[in-house]
Amino acid sequence: MDFLSDFLTNFLAKLQSPTLGFLIGGGVVAALGSRLAIPDAVYKFIVFMLLIKVGLSGGIAIRNANLAEMLLPAAFAMAVGILIVFIGRYTLAKLPNVKVVDAIATAGLFGAVSGSTLAAALTLMETGGMQYEPWAAALYPFMDIPALVTAIVLASVYLSKQRNAADEHLSKQEYLGQQEYRAQQGGGTAVEYRSKQSSAANNKVKIWPIIQESLQGSALSALLLGIALGLLTRPESVYESFFDPLFRGLLSILMLIMGMEATARINELRKVAQWYAVYALVAPLLHGFIAFGFGMIAHAVTGFSPGGVVILAVIAASSSDISGPPTLRAGIPSANPSAYIGSSTAVGTPVAIALGIPLYIALAQALMGS
Amino acid sequence: MDFLSDFLTNFLAKLQSPTLGFLIGGGVVAALGSRLAIPDAVYKFIVFMLLIKVGLSGGIAIRNANLAEMLLPAAFAMAVGILIVFIGRYTLAKLPNVKVVDAIATAGLFGAVSGSTLAAALTLMETGGMQYEPWAAALYPFMDIPALVTAIVLASVYLSKQRNAADEHLSKQEYLGQQEYRAQQGGGTAVEYRSKQSSAANNKVKIWPIIQESLQGSALSALLLGIALGLLTRPESVYESFFDPLFRGLLSILMLIMGMEATARINELRKVAQWYAVYALVAPLLHGFIAFGFGMIAHAVTGFSPGGVVILAVIAASSSDISGPPTLRAGIPSANPSAYIGSSTAVGTPVAIALGIPLYIALAQALMGS
Amino acid sequence: MDFLSDFLTNFLAKLQSPTLGFLIGGGVVAALGSRLAIPDAVYKFIVFMLLIKVGLSGGIAIRNANLAEMLLPAAFAMAVGILIVFIGRYTLAKLPNVKVVDAIATAGLFGAVSGSTLAAALTLMETGGMQYEPWAAALYPFMDIPALVTAIVLASVYLSKQRNAADEHLSKQEYLGQQEYRAQQGGGTAVEYRSKQSSAANNKVKIWPIIQESLQGSALSALLLGIALGLLTRPESVYESFFDPLFRGLLSILMLIMGMEATARINELRKVAQWYAVYALVAPLLHGFIAFGFGMIAHAVTGFSPGGVVILAVIAASSSDISGPPTLRAGIPSANPSAYIGSSTAVGTPVAIALGIPLYIALAQALMGS
Repeated sequence: MDFLSDFLTNFLAKLQSPTLGFLIGGGVVAALGSRLAIPDAVYKFIVFMLLIKVGLSGGIAIRNANLAEMLLPAAFAMAVGILIVFIGRYTLAKLPNVKVVDAIATAGLFGAVSGSTLAAALTLMETGGMQYEPWAAALYPFMDIPALVTAIVLASVYLSKQRNAADEHLSKQEYLGQQEYRAQQGGGTAVEYRSKQSSAANNKVKIWPIIQESLQGSALSALLLGIALGLLTRPESVYESFFDPLFRGLLSILMLIMGMEATARINELRKVAQWYAVYALVAPLLHGFIAFGFGMIAHAVTGFSPGGVVILAVIAASSSDISGPPTLRAGIPSANPSAYIGSSTAVGTPVAIALGIPLYIALAQALMGS
Repeated sequence: MDFLSDFLTNFLAKLQSPTLGFLIGGGVVAALGSRLAIPDAVYKFIVFMLLIKVGLSGGIAIRNANLAEMLLPAAFAMAVGILIVFIGRYTLAKLPNVKVVDAIATAGLFGAVSGSTLAAALTLMETGGMQYEPWAAALYPFMDIPALVTAIVLASVYLSKQRNAADEHLSKQEYLGQQEYRAQQGGGTAVEYRSKQSSAANNKVKIWPIIQESLQGSALSALLLGIALGLLTRPESVYESFFDPLFRGLLSILMLIMGMEATARINELRKVAQWYAVYALVAPLLHGFIAFGFGMIAHAVTGFSPGGVVILAVIAASSSDISGPPTLRAGIPSANPSAYIGSSTAVGTPVAIALGIPLYIALAQALMGS
Repeated sequence: MDFLSDFLTNFLAKLQSPTLGFLIGGGVVAALGSRLAIPDAVYKFIVFMLLIKVGLSGGIAIRNANLAEMLLPAAFAMAVGILIVFIGRYTLAKLPNVKVVDAIATAGLFGAVSGSTLAAALTLMETGGMQYEPWAAALYPFMDIPALVTAIVLASVYLSKQRNAADEHLSKQEYLGQQEYRAQQGGGTAVEYRSKQSSAANNKVKIWPIIQESLQGSALSALLLGIALGLLTRPESVYESFFDPLFRGLLSILMLIMGMEATARINELRKVAQWYAVYALVAPLLHGFIAFGFGMIAHAVTGFSPGGVVILAVIAASSSDISGPPTLRAGIPSANPSAYIGSSTAVGTPVAIALGIPLYIALAQALMGS
C-alpha cells in the first residue's frame, strides 16, 4: 500500500497548491452565485502573457541546448509528443458520449510536459545515483510544444469537418426543399450540391489551410512568437525580470477563471467521467512505456544513457500543469477545462509521480544495468 | 503643543506618501481638465487584485494564528469592528445633509484597520518595553474584515429601503392616479398597495437576501475568496511572488483613479465637511476606548496582557488606508471617496497616531501597572 | 575601418536586445497574418504605466539634483532639447514626400535621451580617467522631457493647421457652391469666409489653446503627473517596487504592438527612406556639436568640467529608446513608428555610440586639455 499512500499524499498536496486552490476556489465562487468576474480584456492579456512566457522558456532552452548531440532523443521526444495526441484522438475520443474536442484537449495535456513531475524524477534519480546527460532535461520543450500544437490542429480539423457536415446537412435539406426555386436560377445547383456531398462524405477537408489558420490564431501565434524570440534574440533580461516572475500569479488568476467556467460545465462530464478516469490511469504508463522504447533505440544507436531514457519516459508520462492549461484554453476554446484539467490533476499526475517514475527507474536498472 | 507638532509631522509625512500623493495627483490632474483615464477593464482588475490580496493576507494570518488562545480577544475584535460601523450608522449618518452611504462607508473605513498605525504602536511599545502576546498583532483581520463586510451590507440594506420607498412613492402616485383603471383589473390592487405601504413604513426590507446579494457582489466575493484560499490552501508562493509585491503599486493607481473622481464630487461635501471633521476627531478616540474596555474584560477573564489591550485599542482607533479604500470603492460604489478617504487621512489617522497611541499606553500602565 | 566594425557590432547587439527583438517579432507576426492582438484597454494601461514611470524617474532625478549648481547646464540642456525638434521641423519635415508628423516625431526621438548611450559614454570616460561633475548625468531629464513635449506640441499645431486648411478648402468650395443659398441667410457669410481664409493663409492658428490641449492629452498628462509626483512627493517605494521593475517588460509588449503596426505602415516609407537615413546619420553628430558648443560656454562661464561638456554632447547626440517610443506613440498617434524607431535604432544610435562618443571625448581633450 506504499503506492496508495504516496498517491494520496501527492493528491492532497496538489489540492493545496495555489494553482489548484484557485481552480477550486473559482468553481466554488461560481457555484455560490457570485458576480465576481475578470474583464475579458484582462483575461486575453493574461493568456498572452502566459503563452509568450511558455514560448520564451522553450525557445531559450532549445537555444542553450546542444542540438547536434541531442538530435535523436529530441526527434524521438517530438515524435512521442505528436503520437500521444493521435493515440488519444483514436481511443478516448471514440468512446461513447465523450466529446471529441474534450478528448483531443485531454490528449494534448497528457502529451505536454509537467515541470514538477520532471523535477521529482530528477531528484529521485540523483538520490539513487543514476547518471544522465546534462542536456536530457532540456528535451521537455521538444515534446511539450509539438503535443500542444498537434492537439490544437487536430481540434481545428475536427471542428472544420463538423461545420462542413452541418453545412452538408443543411444544403441537403435546402436542396430538397428549394430544388424547384434553384432550378429557376441556373443549372449549377445540383453540381454544387454533389461536390459538397462528396467532400463531406469522404471527410476530405483541406488540412493545410486549417493548420495555417491554427498557427495564425492568437494562442499558437503567441506561443511560436515566444519560441522564435527565445531562439533568435536575447530576451533573458525581460524574461527574468518580467515574464517569469509574473507567471505563477497570472496562472493562478487563469485557474480562477477556468474554475468559474468549470462549474458551469461540470455536468457535461457526468456520463463520461469513468472514461476519463480510465484514460488518466492508463495513459501515463502507456505513454511512458512508448517513450521508454524509443529511448532504448537511442541507447542502442547513440549510447543515450539509461538515466536519459528514464527522463524521456517521465516527460511522456507526465501531463502539463503549466504550459497546457493556458494554451489549450486559448487554442481550443470549446473544450471543457473540467475534462482535461480534472483528468490530469486528479489522476494522471499522481499516477505518473507515484507509479510511473519508480517503474521506469527500476526498468532502466533491470534492462540497462545502470 | 507636543501633540500639535506630532500631528502636523504625521500629517505632512502622510501627504508625501505615495498613496496620498497619487490621490492628490489624480485630483489635481482632473481639476486641470486632463483627458488621462484608466480603462475600466483595468480598473476592475486592479480592484480584484487588491481585494484578493487583502483577503489572502487576512486568511493566512488567521490560519497561522493560535485560535484557541486568542479566542476571546478575537471575538471582541470582531464585535468592536461591527459595533463601530453601527455607531457611525446611528450618529454620523443621522446628521443633517450627510449622505447615508457616505457615512456608512466612512464608518466602515474607521472600523477597518491601518497596518501602519498598528506598526507605529508596536514600535512605541517595544521602545517602552511593554510586553504583549506574539499573536496580538494577528487580531487585525478579525476587526478589519467584519467592519468592511458590515459597512457594505448596511449600505445595501439602506439602498434597498430607498428603492422600496421610491417604488412606494411611485406606487402611491400610481395608485391615486390609476385607481380607476386598476379597479377594473381586479380587487387585489388595494391590498397590494397596502402591503407595500406597511412594509415601507416599517422599513421591513428582507435582510437576508440583501446580505446574500452583498456577499455575492464582486467586492466581497473577491475578499472572501481570498480569505478562504488563505485559510484552506497554501497560497504563500503566489502571495509572496505576485499579489503582495504588486499591491502597493496597484493601490497607488487606484488612488489616482479615486483622486480623479474626488475632484468631481468634492462639492457634495461642502455643506457637511464640519460633520466629517468632528466625527474623524472624536471617533478614533471613542472606538479606542470601547476596545480598551473589551480588552480589560479579556485581561480580567483570561489574563490578556496590558500590551494586548493597547493593541486592541489601537486597531480600533485606526482607520484603514490599505484594505478599506478598494473594498469600499467596489462594495459601495455610490459612496463618495472624498468623504471617507478625506476624513481618515486628513484627521482620523493623525489623531489615532499622535493622540490615541500614547493615551492607550498611558492608560494601560495606569490601570494594569505594566 | 574600426568605426565600421564598431558600428556593426553595435547594430547586431541592438537587433538582439529584447526591445528591438519584440519590435521585429511583432512585425513578422503581423506580416504572417497572425490574429494575435493586445486588447486596447491593456494597451492604454501599458502606455500609462510607461509614461508615469518616465515622469517619476525624471521628477525624482530633478528633485535629487543640486539645481543651484547645475542651473546653467540644465538650462542649456533644455534649450538644446527644444532646438533639436525645431531643427527637424525645418529640415527633415520639409524634404519631399516626408510626412510632417513622422518627421516631428523623429526629431522628438532624436531630441530625447537614451540612457544606454549615456551609460556607454560614462563607462568610456571613466576608463579614460576623464572627470565630470557627479550631477552631470542628471542633466538628461532636462533635455529628454522638453524635447518630447515640444514634438507633441509642434505636431498638434501642425495638425490643427491642416484641419483648418481642410475646413478652409471645404468652406471655399461650399462658398462657391452655396453662395446663393447663403446670401439669403444674411450678410455675414462673406466676412466669415474671408476671415477663415486669411487665418489659414497666414497659418495664424492660435497656439496657446493647442499647447493646453496637448498638455491635457493622456500622454503628456501622465508624463507631467509623474514628474510632479516625483518632484513633490516621495514615491520611491512604489517606484522601486512597482513602476521600475515592470518597465522593461511592459516596454517589450509596447514594442510588439508597435511592430505589428509597423508592418502595416512600412510601405509609406519606401519613397522617403533615404531622407531618414541621411537625417539619422547627420543629426546625432550635429546635435552633439551644438550641445558641445553650449557646454563650452558653460565651461567658460561657470567652470563646467570638460567631462560634463562631453556628457551634454552625448545626451544631445543620443536618441531615446526608452522614454521616446511610448510618449510619441501616445502623444502623436498619427506618426508612423517605423519612421522614428527605424531611424533611431538602425542608424542614429549606432552612429552616436560608435562615432559620436569618441569624437566628443577627443574634442574635449583637444580643446580643454582634460
